[in-house]
Amino acid sequence: MKEDCIFCKIAAGEIPCFKVYEDDLVLSFLDIGPVVAGHTLVIPKRHYRNLLDVPAEALSGISRRLPMLARAVISVVQAPACHLLLNNGVEAMQSVQHLHYHILPRRQGDGFGVPWPAGRLEATTARQMAAEIAAAVAKAH
Amino acid sequence: MKEDCIFCKIAAGEIPCFKVYEDDLVLSFLDIGPVVAGHTLVIPKRHYRNLLDVPAEALSGISRRLPMLARAVISVVQAPACHLLLNNGVEAMQSVQHLHYHILPRRQGDGFGVPWPAGRLEATTARQMAAEIAAAVAKAH
Repeated sequence: MKEDCIFCKIAAGEIPCFKVYEDDLVLSFLDIGPVVAGHTLVIPKRHYRNLLDVPAEALSGISRRLPMLARAVISVVQAPACHLLLNNGVEAMQSVQHLHYHILPRRQGDGFGVPWPAGRLEATTARQMAAEIAAAVAKAH
Repeated sequence: MKEDCIFCKIAAGEIPCFKVYEDDLVLSFLDIGPVVAGHTLVIPKRHYRNLLDVPAEALSGISRRLPMLARAVISVVQAPACHLLLNNGVEAMQSVQHLHYHILPRRQGDGFGVPWPAGRLEATTARQMAAEIAAAVAKAH
């Protein structure tokens, strides 16, 4: 438990939440600042900052709960679809520095949306970038 | 393999891609319509539509590769942060109906961003919604 972390305090039961699910590894509760109806968070009870520092096994365990939770959330708010979003780092809009998945139910005409200014991948640049990422993965693997 | 699925064809090697990683379970490659530099996809080789139909164990296996891949991608494009985004259903902007995680590197001033019109959770409504979702999870569990 990290002393100054609000999600660690929620996981420890020191701060209340609108809980939807809990087990030994994860806690799931409603976001207090919902951007869409049914906006739900899923956090590991143990403190990890985000995707960039979480061990593979830990993320794997947390992820096992996500299909079940997403299906339950969208069934209750009667939405046909949802985003699953994990913001990693303050430059990626991470506000609480404890790993948390956002489940964001979506329906047509709900007014929410992620801008998608798709560019076009240029082959020469792409070939080099892919090779560099592949090398970085191989080094870490 | 689903006959009319472009990502199944990419996974089978029938359509080329700018590959960054491959193993028995997953394939990772650059998005051909990048919304930010380094925009990378991670897909299971086996066909699942999205988070709403993928078995827990399968998602768990795919997720094990995500921390390593995200770290490699952002190190190469020298970004300090990233989103991990999974769009589930056409109403949630899912364009290819084969489960795919987007790794979206972020840096300050890059012009990308997710609008975040945070509301305020009202306690009575929240208590009931949390109870209903908890019941739906318990039923599925």
